[in-house]
Amino acid sequence: MSGTQQVKPALGETEGDTGNLTQLEFLALNSEFNIADGHARQALTTGQNKIVDDLPLLFAEGEKRPVEELEREAHAAFFNALGQHSYPIAPGRVLSCYSSSVAMEILSRSLAETIESVALIHPTFDNIADLLRGNGLKLLPLDENMLHDGDLDVGLFASTGCVFVTTPNNPTGRVVSKERLTRLAEQCAAHGAILALDTSFRGFDTRAQYDHYEILQASGVRWVVIEDTGKLWPTLDLKVGMLVHSDNLGLPVEQIYSDILLGVSPLILAMVRRFSEDAAAGGLEHLHRFIASNRAMVRSELAELPGVTVPDPESRASVERVGIENLTGTEVWERLREHNVYALPCRSFHWANPSAGDHTLRLALARSTDPLTQSVRALRHALTQR
Amino acid sequence: MSGTQQVKPALGETEGDTGNLTQLEFLALNSEFNIADGHARQALTTGQNKIVDDLPLLFAEGEKRPVEELEREAHAAFFNALGQHSYPIAPGRVLSCYSSSVAMEILSRSLAETIESVALIHPTFDNIADLLRGNGLKLLPLDENMLHDGDLDVGLFASTGCVFVTTPNNPTGRVVSKERLTRLAEQCAAHGAILALDTSFRGFDTRAQYDHYEILQASGVRWVVIEDTGKLWPTLDLKVGMLVHSDNLGLPVEQIYSDILLGVSPLILAMVRRFSEDAAAGGLEHLHRFIASNRAMVRSELAELPGVTVPDPESRASVERVGIENLTGTEVWERLREHNVYALPCRSFHWANPSAGDHTLRLALARSTDPLTQSVRALRHALTQR
Repeated sequence: MSGTQQVKPALGETEGDTGNLTQLEFLALNSEFNIADGHARQALTTGQNKIVDDLPLLFAEGEKRPVEELEREAHAAFFNALGQHSYPIAPGRVLSCYSSSVAMEILSRSLAETIESVALIHPTFDNIADLLRGNGLKLLPLDENMLHDGDLDVGLFASTGCVFVTTPNNPTGRVVSKERLTRLAEQCAAHGAILALDTSFRGFDTRAQYDHYEILQASGVRWVVIEDTGKLWPTLDLKVGMLVHSDNLGLPVEQIYSDILLGVSPLILAMVRRFSEDAAAGGLEHLHRFIASNRAMVRSELAELPGVTVPDPESRASVERVGIENLTGTEVWERLREHNVYALPCRSFHWANPSAGDHTLRLALARSTDPLTQSVRALRHALTQR
Repeated sequence: MSGTQQVKPALGETEGDTGNLTQLEFLALNSEFNIADGHARQALTTGQNKIVDDLPLLFAEGEKRPVEELEREAHAAFFNALGQHSYPIAPGRVLSCYSSSVAMEILSRSLAETIESVALIHPTFDNIADLLRGNGLKLLPLDENMLHDGDLDVGLFASTGCVFVTTPNNPTGRVVSKERLTRLAEQCAAHGAILALDTSFRGFDTRAQYDHYEILQASGVRWVVIEDTGKLWPTLDLKVGMLVHSDNLGLPVEQIYSDILLGVSPLILAMVRRFSEDAAAGGLEHLHRFIASNRAMVRSELAELPGVTVPDPESRASVERVGIENLTGTEVWERLREHNVYALPCRSFHWANPSAGDHTLRLALARSTDPLTQSVRALRHALTQR
């Protein structure tokens, strides 16, 4: 586990919260033992390899066919593979972006034109909070447990124009059930608040694959959903983030979209169609077994270590939190780094209260099993070090 | 020239300035006779075809090699192909983005943190103005002729913290000379203003390939340059926009970059390296001949039409303006649209004074010669229609 260079963006020499999570992920990028970021980095399956072999054919298809057709087919294949049969098909309702974060930037800037504050699930990946705040919005933390326990406190709606929920959540893997989504949409509709969902991790969890669009449409709420192909398949970050919205949204998302892009690559759209078809034809079940097996390995390797816990026993997401009583996540991160292993300390996920994440670490599971196993053994070593 | 669907984003039924230029470009996307957008849509050359055939190999390379190496090689190949030998190689100084517009969004939001207004070249592509204004910045028009004629009025610096120049400019193709850039950088340095350049079209014009970075560095100015691989090669919009900056910039570009992305695809980086190597080995000269030939065809087809002029006789960019005395650009756009031909009326390029663009139309030259010729003949027909 030898040398990698540390490059941009520079982090301070002290505690790990001098940079955001993406900056911590950046340090890991060139390591063979990068279990930091949530991108898919496992090996391609046989079926997926066949698609990569066909890239020159897909390129030729992208040159010849109208991009509108390729885009419609990519959307249909992706949404249908994930059970989202009621997704909107009218022009402009699914805006294909370079990534889910670009979709999030467009949404954030659009929200800032008409509302002042957003109630955002807590904890969640910090770049959601950073993009909203960076565009001038105030944030109110919406505790994940309260979100799942029952109706939101109506007092919340007095001070916020939008409720933003990540489901399955990152890093906890918790999924908003059909019943909770129904009530949440009804509450937001009744109070005139926009309901925004980030469902980037839903491909990993069948419990998040009930038809969200049917529920959102039926409620009459003003809604936005950010979907992402980027977490599922090891396509070297060739991906599409989608900003999907209700026809009554009343935000300038299409205008701001057109300021930033004309569209995504037809080659990527053709790839997304093929990977989605492969997913629907068994690839998704294969992926679920693969992630479950990696998760079982992690839990087994760390089992019975004193003070080490499994905070999210029900999670099926491609990330796994590890609770550590005796050390901070940042201390463990520093010990791992000496072995060129990179995980993520969880402070920054708790964007409103970082200390609540002091004693957890997030591991990525969408990795080939061998380097992941070696990384987890290094973690076990770090946790038992004197 | 038969039916295409019109999809997002909707335009009004009246004059063409109800949407921005990208929205007008969007309407053209599915037409065989799209001479609207400035993306490269000509056929691949033999050398480029070989690279596309190698996509599965490049994918395998992207899986195996550290992304840091691929990125360094892509930057080196691209900058060296365009004569930019003094580009900065220190970590974090060249931020690879999904596109030049994403780089522009990051720069705009960064500028808005410390300054209030930007002097922006006039005319230029409207999304530069829209992204700056959309992030809360005030704009002062900097007339292109005044920029080229000599030193800027020092009064300008009293009210602006940044001078933004597109060179070669879009749509005029005008290039800031080495002498003018030297003085501009000196003036900005003397007045503490940031100098920002968008050089996305420089690959088409050897006059814009002197080493800009050498001049910028020597001046001591705080500078930013947006570079783009996306205009040069028909890679189906697989591209990299680069936000390059001086070490004394003093803007949070790295922080905001990390809010939006972790990095671009290693496959795209490997492609950029190969396309750049091909460009350096004769591909760029081939491209220049190709664009010059298309330009000569356009001028020849439209020659001697009464009231039709060539506003930019010296331009080598991959776009060509046509001046039309008797009709507005929007009227011509409407006539062309009936034949499923899409060009760009130029009003919106004149972001501070749209009527100055009333009688010009922009054509894209980075198109295969046959459909371009048919489109230009449709234009000739439209211009001679009673």
